[in-house]
Amino acid sequence: MTRARITIDRDFTIADVPRRLFGSFVEHMGRCVYTGIYEPGHPTADDRGYRKDVLELVRELGPTVVRYPGGNFVSGYLWEDGIGPVAERPRRIDGAWHTIETNEFGLHEFMGWAREADVEVMEAINLGTRGVEEARALVEYANHPGGTYWSDLRRRNGAEDPFDIKLWCLGNELDGPWQIGHKTAHEYGRLAQETAKAMKLVDDSIELIAVGSSNRYMETFGSWEHTVLTHAYDEIDYISMHEYYQERSGDAASFLAEAVGMDAFIDGVVATIDAVKAAGKHTKQVDISFDEWNVWYAEGLDSADQIHQVKKEWREHPRLIEDEYSVTDAVVVGTLLNSLLRHGDRVRIANQAQLVNVIAPIRSEEGGSAWRQTIFWPFARMAALARGQILRLAVSADQIATEKFGDVDVIDAAATWSEADGRVALFVANRGLSEASEVSVDLRGLGAARVVSAEVLTIPEGGDRHTSNVESAPDAVGLVPLTGVGVQDGTVHLTLPPLSWAVVELEVAVS
Amino acid sequence: MTRARITIDRDFTIADVPRRLFGSFVEHMGRCVYTGIYEPGHPTADDRGYRKDVLELVRELGPTVVRYPGGNFVSGYLWEDGIGPVAERPRRIDGAWHTIETNEFGLHEFMGWAREADVEVMEAINLGTRGVEEARALVEYANHPGGTYWSDLRRRNGAEDPFDIKLWCLGNELDGPWQIGHKTAHEYGRLAQETAKAMKLVDDSIELIAVGSSNRYMETFGSWEHTVLTHAYDEIDYISMHEYYQERSGDAASFLAEAVGMDAFIDGVVATIDAVKAAGKHTKQVDISFDEWNVWYAEGLDSADQIHQVKKEWREHPRLIEDEYSVTDAVVVGTLLNSLLRHGDRVRIANQAQLVNVIAPIRSEEGGSAWRQTIFWPFARMAALARGQILRLAVSADQIATEKFGDVDVIDAAATWSEADGRVALFVANRGLSEASEVSVDLRGLGAARVVSAEVLTIPEGGDRHTSNVESAPDAVGLVPLTGVGVQDGTVHLTLPPLSWAVVELEVAVS
Amino acid sequence: MTRARITIDRDFTIADVPRRLFGSFVEHMGRCVYTGIYEPGHPTADDRGYRKDVLELVRELGPTVVRYPGGNFVSGYLWEDGIGPVAERPRRIDGAWHTIETNEFGLHEFMGWAREADVEVMEAINLGTRGVEEARALVEYANHPGGTYWSDLRRRNGAEDPFDIKLWCLGNELDGPWQIGHKTAHEYGRLAQETAKAMKLVDDSIELIAVGSSNRYMETFGSWEHTVLTHAYDEIDYISMHEYYQERSGDAASFLAEAVGMDAFIDGVVATIDAVKAAGKHTKQVDISFDEWNVWYAEGLDSADQIHQVKKEWREHPRLIEDEYSVTDAVVVGTLLNSLLRHGDRVRIANQAQLVNVIAPIRSEEGGSAWRQTIFWPFARMAALARGQILRLAVSADQIATEKFGDVDVIDAAATWSEADGRVALFVANRGLSEASEVSVDLRGLGAARVVSAEVLTIPEGGDRHTSNVESAPDAVGLVPLTGVGVQDGTVHLTLPPLSWAVVELEVAVS
Repeated sequence: MTRARITIDRDFTIADVPRRLFGSFVEHMGRCVYTGIYEPGHPTADDRGYRKDVLELVRELGPTVVRYPGGNFVSGYLWEDGIGPVAERPRRIDGAWHTIETNEFGLHEFMGWAREADVEVMEAINLGTRGVEEARALVEYANHPGGTYWSDLRRRNGAEDPFDIKLWCLGNELDGPWQIGHKTAHEYGRLAQETAKAMKLVDDSIELIAVGSSNRYMETFGSWEHTVLTHAYDEIDYISMHEYYQERSGDAASFLAEAVGMDAFIDGVVATIDAVKAAGKHTKQVDISFDEWNVWYAEGLDSADQIHQVKKEWREHPRLIEDEYSVTDAVVVGTLLNSLLRHGDRVRIANQAQLVNVIAPIRSEEGGSAWRQTIFWPFARMAALARGQILRLAVSADQIATEKFGDVDVIDAAATWSEADGRVALFVANRGLSEASEVSVDLRGLGAARVVSAEVLTIPEGGDRHTSNVESAPDAVGLVPLTGVGVQDGTVHLTLPPLSWAVVELEVAVS
Repeated sequence: MTRARITIDRDFTIADVPRRLFGSFVEHMGRCVYTGIYEPGHPTADDRGYRKDVLELVRELGPTVVRYPGGNFVSGYLWEDGIGPVAERPRRIDGAWHTIETNEFGLHEFMGWAREADVEVMEAINLGTRGVEEARALVEYANHPGGTYWSDLRRRNGAEDPFDIKLWCLGNELDGPWQIGHKTAHEYGRLAQETAKAMKLVDDSIELIAVGSSNRYMETFGSWEHTVLTHAYDEIDYISMHEYYQERSGDAASFLAEAVGMDAFIDGVVATIDAVKAAGKHTKQVDISFDEWNVWYAEGLDSADQIHQVKKEWREHPRLIEDEYSVTDAVVVGTLLNSLLRHGDRVRIANQAQLVNVIAPIRSEEGGSAWRQTIFWPFARMAALARGQILRLAVSADQIATEKFGDVDVIDAAATWSEADGRVALFVANRGLSEASEVSVDLRGLGAARVVSAEVLTIPEGGDRHTSNVESAPDAVGLVPLTGVGVQDGTVHLTLPPLSWAVVELEVAVS
Repeated sequence: MTRARITIDRDFTIADVPRRLFGSFVEHMGRCVYTGIYEPGHPTADDRGYRKDVLELVRELGPTVVRYPGGNFVSGYLWEDGIGPVAERPRRIDGAWHTIETNEFGLHEFMGWAREADVEVMEAINLGTRGVEEARALVEYANHPGGTYWSDLRRRNGAEDPFDIKLWCLGNELDGPWQIGHKTAHEYGRLAQETAKAMKLVDDSIELIAVGSSNRYMETFGSWEHTVLTHAYDEIDYISMHEYYQERSGDAASFLAEAVGMDAFIDGVVATIDAVKAAGKHTKQVDISFDEWNVWYAEGLDSADQIHQVKKEWREHPRLIEDEYSVTDAVVVGTLLNSLLRHGDRVRIANQAQLVNVIAPIRSEEGGSAWRQTIFWPFARMAALARGQILRLAVSADQIATEKFGDVDVIDAAATWSEADGRVALFVANRGLSEASEVSVDLRGLGAARVVSAEVLTIPEGGDRHTSNVESAPDAVGLVPLTGVGVQDGTVHLTLPPLSWAVVELEVAVS
């Protein structure tokens, strides 16, 4: 049994919970769109081809904002291919994923789906092979009310009202040599600056996200952000971060501590932003959009359906990186969500990648069923319960030794407090693989009245840490009641089973 | 009473008067085109929509060359939008001026108007969002006789003969961060070089103007010119200068001395050109096109019709920066014209910005009248009378103290001598706000025979230095006879009222 | 009489003969395409307009691969202009050669011709005015089987099967300031890198050639290659070399020694490639495509049909640089072919420029005949007989003094050995203008059995070193039997007349 003590004080807060922290991502990749969110002919499909079974799971998952249409895909994408009569849309080669893109699904189809799913749209533009002209045309098409060439075309294509898209990604991972139209930091900084300016001249209410490093281990990490921000600080509103996490060589301890790495990665980007802000004597605050993150099994690349295997033939929506997530992955995802929440003062947008099938919380089969992966649960609960203000936690915990991060706290926690609702939500993971953890939570300035709910995700009866949900057993891993949560003298006591993620909702009163 | 002595010697000349020094500028901005030079339905409009009342004033003003279609506008302009059947032309967002551009008026309409106005056309291309391909296509469209794709399209669009445009601006103010597609000096130098080369491969008779600094106070002034010229010296013919002048905090003395600043600005650019010429071992001479200059009230930006006020709604030809010019402004414009003339050996083109309504010598109201602003007069007279050679003047004058330029001559003068006509034209301003100025002009090598005419613009009876011409009183300020001009022993004597600009035409014989 | 001794050892070889070394070049320039390979209405033209008389000579010449469509032309070429119904193709201005391009002949026409001529196609893309988008579209059009926008367009245009073009030039001579869209090494290196990557994502079986220096005397030679390779080493397969040779001021000795210069030029580029390979820790080997080389009389530029003379008018396929080649030129071409062969381990592709009329081995007149120039012969014989492996020769020869290269061997030689055929082919030139040369060739490890053939090109009876083949005397210079070639004790003895190029084929057995 390990031990941890958490102190919460209602006067020590980080920020209001940025609702866009619970974003997701739909890329034209593999089966995320086709046979994922969209599959005409599927038994549950509506008349526009949206799968209702998937849609229902999406609503249950509760993403607030969804990035679209890529990802690597967007760096070679011509957005006009996806508008107008479907029969006239060109079939294209997507070099990024070695796929034939039919363009059956495009901007209007996605906007319609997003309305059904009740999510905000975050649109990425192609800055790989394109530039200012195509970007400003797209903003005019999407957001201008009417009376101009592009906005009237949108109306002729069936959308009388503007889409009014507020969030725009200025390209995707252009620091990566794998990207179509990869750029140097200088090239990208200049392009982002000029494109941003021209887009805002069309609609000055939009918010723009410049491309940051594709991950923390890029050779250009840090200098990329510095150069890009130096050019484009005034024109942009956010800089992006991307990172994927995996267990390497069976080192579960390090994997379970990756939120420590995410914390440090975020802190580094924050420092870079603020250094450029200071040097440039800027007053406005640029924040972070962590718009691709998740667990992604690199070793998955060796499986039969991975990219370098399918490269010999060109297919429509091939099965790509459909990672099957375990209990371990779900606990890690819980801690990554905690890390994002802990940085909610600067990370204002985050998008788990992706939504369906492609390294996704939701899986679906063509003509078949849809189900929740293990990682569905921490996302769904935090998206639902993180309300009000993010609390700054003081944690004192037993340590776990990891190869990658040294000694780390056995538990990882985050919490929010909604004064309006009179609720505190506590999200806490036990990284210990074999020992349960006894956690006490001191609530200062808050009278803890009542445990509203307490749930935990852990290794199921008869399973192990690798157990996952599959089509034939879609509910193998889920949330179960966390019993024994007690409140005494303003302190909450709970015991987490080994390898677990829990959420406790408390009714509190200001004391 | 202040005093000044001017010495003219027919053997000390600067250059032949470059007729293109009296250029103007028509931008798709505010009401310069629409309801300015073009207003179908106006009582005076001809069948092509050209306002004849405005056209008459333009002919009287006498510009020799008119720059078109921008200005900031051109950096987002697609020239093909302005050709072909008017009904099929796209309505566009003009991000530069937050305006809806109907494209009712385009290249053919402007060429037709220019023929009516008897002015040379100076065409600017879009190097903000476009490059080599579109530029060479436009040169082919405009200047190639026929038998090729673009030239045949021009003919199908009604222009059998080539437009034969000789003067081309390689973009506009691309050093300015406000510009759509702003460039670094290196980026622009390279783009200008390659675009210029490709354009001349289509028509090697054209003359090309590279973009210089947007004004003397740009942080990159000097280094911009140096870098651009180092790249493109061989491919271009001129480098541009732009500058607007205004009275700040009621400091009329400094404002009236701005020609001193213009002199220094020009000298600085000449030096930069010649330094690059020397370093690059070039033999050809690059000269200057001062293709935007005027008085422009920055404070005008606070008025109801200014850009940041109208930004909330999108309109066609909104009322933008329709400055109302005073007596003071007219005197300053007279001195700026003198400065340009004094540099006629290197400033070979100059364009007052703009021609109608938008900071313009001519004003017009929609469905209403057209009239001359105060600044109309010095331009019109100099354009008419500056002939032959520019004389190098020696001036010895009482000084006026200014905050911005220290002590400056109380008078500002320029003169031309046409041997063919037997005429000297003297353009002279009295900067003194309260004292008249007694001016004597020694004519060496020229027998001064006769005063042909003498006119002066000054504060009218009952007015003050702020008096201007408005629709209801369009002739409040104008030229009146300058009395008391005498010739004695080869010396001309004249007395200028306080705050005045005068033109004296003399009949002379070589002595 | 001069003397030379050559030692051949079957164990000392350089590489397999790269068959692509015997490439040629068809540019849309002058009369290479129109009235060259293509002339509908010509008495010998087939129903597609291919001249059969020219085609027959091309087959006899034996090029293995033909580069197309430029050259300088390609840097302003829009490839889509050359596809689809001929009647709808646009007539364009070709700024590179001041020519009207009718686009009657385009990609499909060239592919059809190449099939008739039995040559591989090497397609150059426009990286002067275009970039990634147009390049990847062209690869899709040419090589993708079908089912996508561009590949289906190819099929609608009559080509059901993909063209399957393997060799692609990433632009042409972009280091040259004369080039439309000239680039700095950095600009080009980046563009080549991104374009290459995007093209290979469409078809990963293609081989890509980056642009090297336009000639050895470019100011940027060496540093250009270094920078371009540093950027694009991983994405490309070859780097190009171009060079043209001429006799200057009657200095025939230096001219005849130019293969020494070519050797050094190649060695320099090989060194640069390998230095970048080492520094970048690359394992793959980049090789050389010497894709423009020939004798070209610079003084030809002063003739009536040269470019700066025709610049005043725009014509279709004007007569441009139709150099008439002499005996001297043929001997030089023979030595240049030897130099290429000697570097066959690293020069894997080479293209004599051009194929017909424009500095070409084959000449044709509109409506008239076609004939072989002097330089036809060494190319034709080497293309036919160089088989198997290139032998590394040890040469010990009398020296000739030259102004440009100092003392050089009086003879220049190369040889191949085909074990399968049991043949050695020896290509040897005598640079001496006045003395014959006695050459002995020791064959080690090879039992020389029999002289199969021995031919020589030299000054014909009654001619001089300037004699050439013209329409009225198309066979003045050709190959004649080389008599007196003997084999004794494993040594071949031959005597070359002054100024001559000879080819000796031997039947050999491994000893």
